[in-house]
Amino acid sequence: MKKFVATDYVPRHFQWEVVGKVATLTLNRPERKNPLTFDSYGELRDLFRELRYATDVKVVVVTGAGGNFCSGGDVHEIIGPLVGMQEAGDMPGLLEFTRMTGDAVVEMRQCPQPIIAAVDGICAGAGAILAMASDMRIGTPRTKTAFLFTRVGLAGADMGACNILPRIIGAGRASELLYTGRSMTGEEGERWGFYNRLVSPEDLLANAQALARELADGPTFAHGMTKKCLQQEWSMGIAEAIEAEAQAQAICMQTRDYARAYRAFVGKVKPVFEGN
Amino acid sequence: MKKFVATDYVPRHFQWEVVGKVATLTLNRPERKNPLTFDSYGELRDLFRELRYATDVKVVVVTGAGGNFCSGGDVHEIIGPLVGMQEAGDMPGLLEFTRMTGDAVVEMRQCPQPIIAAVDGICAGAGAILAMASDMRIGTPRTKTAFLFTRVGLAGADMGACNILPRIIGAGRASELLYTGRSMTGEEGERWGFYNRLVSPEDLLANAQALARELADGPTFAHGMTKKCLQQEWSMGIAEAIEAEAQAQAICMQTRDYARAYRAFVGKVKPVFEGN
Amino acid sequence: MKKFVATDYVPRHFQWEVVGKVATLTLNRPERKNPLTFDSYGELRDLFRELRYATDVKVVVVTGAGGNFCSGGDVHEIIGPLVGMQEAGDMPGLLEFTRMTGDAVVEMRQCPQPIIAAVDGICAGAGAILAMASDMRIGTPRTKTAFLFTRVGLAGADMGACNILPRIIGAGRASELLYTGRSMTGEEGERWGFYNRLVSPEDLLANAQALARELADGPTFAHGMTKKCLQQEWSMGIAEAIEAEAQAQAICMQTRDYARAYRAFVGKVKPVFEGN
Repeated sequence: MKKFVATDYVPRHFQWEVVGKVATLTLNRPERKNPLTFDSYGELRDLFRELRYATDVKVVVVTGAGGNFCSGGDVHEIIGPLVGMQEAGDMPGLLEFTRMTGDAVVEMRQCPQPIIAAVDGICAGAGAILAMASDMRIGTPRTKTAFLFTRVGLAGADMGACNILPRIIGAGRASELLYTGRSMTGEEGERWGFYNRLVSPEDLLANAQALARELADGPTFAHGMTKKCLQQEWSMGIAEAIEAEAQAQAICMQTRDYARAYRAFVGKVKPVFEGN
Repeated sequence: MKKFVATDYVPRHFQWEVVGKVATLTLNRPERKNPLTFDSYGELRDLFRELRYATDVKVVVVTGAGGNFCSGGDVHEIIGPLVGMQEAGDMPGLLEFTRMTGDAVVEMRQCPQPIIAAVDGICAGAGAILAMASDMRIGTPRTKTAFLFTRVGLAGADMGACNILPRIIGAGRASELLYTGRSMTGEEGERWGFYNRLVSPEDLLANAQALARELADGPTFAHGMTKKCLQQEWSMGIAEAIEAEAQAQAICMQTRDYARAYRAFVGKVKPVFEGN
Repeated sequence: MKKFVATDYVPRHFQWEVVGKVATLTLNRPERKNPLTFDSYGELRDLFRELRYATDVKVVVVTGAGGNFCSGGDVHEIIGPLVGMQEAGDMPGLLEFTRMTGDAVVEMRQCPQPIIAAVDGICAGAGAILAMASDMRIGTPRTKTAFLFTRVGLAGADMGACNILPRIIGAGRASELLYTGRSMTGEEGERWGFYNRLVSPEDLLANAQALARELADGPTFAHGMTKKCLQQEWSMGIAEAIEAEAQAQAICMQTRDYARAYRAFVGKVKPVFEGN
């Protein structure tokens, strides 16, 4: 079977560091608040697709360098060329771009590794989408999260925001953010359920990596099934979802981690999971 | 193509005022707390359907006169005749009524204009539904919002409430409101995400109209696409929603507003959007 | 037509008490914090299926004895035998188990009676699922609710949790609880919308039963329709849901309770509903 060794991955457009079973992906153009470019979008998409075949990395932390998460698509390196495509009447080119960015989100939802976004400072546009597409989000009191597509003349309908954001913070609050493009404060983000918690900027990365290690030390095959079911059952009826989970959980009951947990409980020791 | 000039519309059962690109619809029978009748339901449905073809009005504010939003279907003018239909065994007549009221909600969701409900005082029954069917809601501390159908012997399943309300405030809270018919306070409404914010009764209408103007001065073609995507992707899987948005956003990238925003950014001026 | 007399039901694995039109189901192995066994799971499934045909009981309260709700599947009586099935390679046996537990949730969602969970103390694993599968939940400040499947080496995908929990508390918070297995405090549970309210442990059961009586004295046929619509419309588009509710509400407009409510209003008396 195809394998991808995440530990050996050499990134081109961001930082990538693996410690134990946890990878940390750092957007790293701090002088511009870590914007995305055509190339970094494409690399994100390709990396998360490869992670489907990785067995060494079990959890991914996504963060940004220099006190900001991500300012979104670079105005000069992305919006400019897209406006050029418009002027040239290049509809296939525009759709190729919007599909590529959407595919980055699809791959983030499809890989088995839970993704934890560690978000400080500016988290805007495509940056807000990367946070939204993660499984969990940790913010800071000074985080400003803005789905600001409307500010650049576009729809809030970008990379799945109209579908995903309402399920995280409710349809009314999502509508306001998508129609107005205004920033959600850190405090609002926690209160509304976008951020799982707020910590100080100094503690942010360590806090996210500690959560990542906790998950990586758990039954990671089962975590991958949890992620798959959250994805698969997104729009299922209740009865169908219950049958899907009956099958998924029966598979997990055939894993050695399940037996390990039972034996550890009976033996009154802490279980040691191996992800199989 | 068919056109509807919203500015020239002469209402029969409520007030309708257009200032700039913002229309304000005011339910206006304050002595009875602005109840709905067969005729006003029908006019709401027809007006929101016509708004699909309007290009002069870009945002709609819905409010009520005299310190209340809407007390719902009039007991004497609606419930009495419906009970008469029951006694006459007129099932087609009853279904014609429930479809008409439901169609009013469908049309509110289908028109491209974002709808902002400005809600003070009583917001009950069909009134609560009109607020729910809006895109955003601004309330006051004294707002009482009650999905009180159960109090008149009916199901909470009215005009889409069992489908829409859980997506705004969560399934547990929606269940309580729909089973008990109790009032949600303004404070609860804000905390649960039904109201986007609370303002004082004196500031309510101005606040809602200011938000409406802000949206109307934005890229309104894109806003219409945001609304359409929120509607279309309501029950889609994530991957399908992302493809839908790739197409929707590629369309928006062909609008002049997108180029205007880019040029304004490069020129360091505020963009002037024209909705095309 | 088949009838089931809930008042006469003699339980085998929990307590069952009917007062008026309200049944109270009490998990009752307090020395072990009311765990479930193969047999009690099966009895729950069968009882909630029979309740579809009961006309004497209109609301069900589910609670636990001795200051705890339910500690979930018994480690010795359930997990041990399941690990034995794993060792024996008995996949059909494992799937039979996960389907049985899932069916208990399906039946809770399919019966017409609203279910109110009264939750104190430990509410873990399958116990958390029983609370989640109820229509409303009342907790206490000391309630600890844990979807702890991951702690025993399994996926959070158990009995519909990946589908249902995100709709109650939002997708981000649900992901955290399902990936980590951590306890949600009572205060978090109320703030996130899992618990409709918190009351003191001493008041818990009386409070839940008072709510149950209030519903049981209401238009219970209509309540059953509310429950059915909440279930049916879970993953519908808005327009389809509105048609479903037009039909459902037209049926309710043919009930005598609807006419009773109208006549009571006109006569300025409190309506007396009879559930038909």
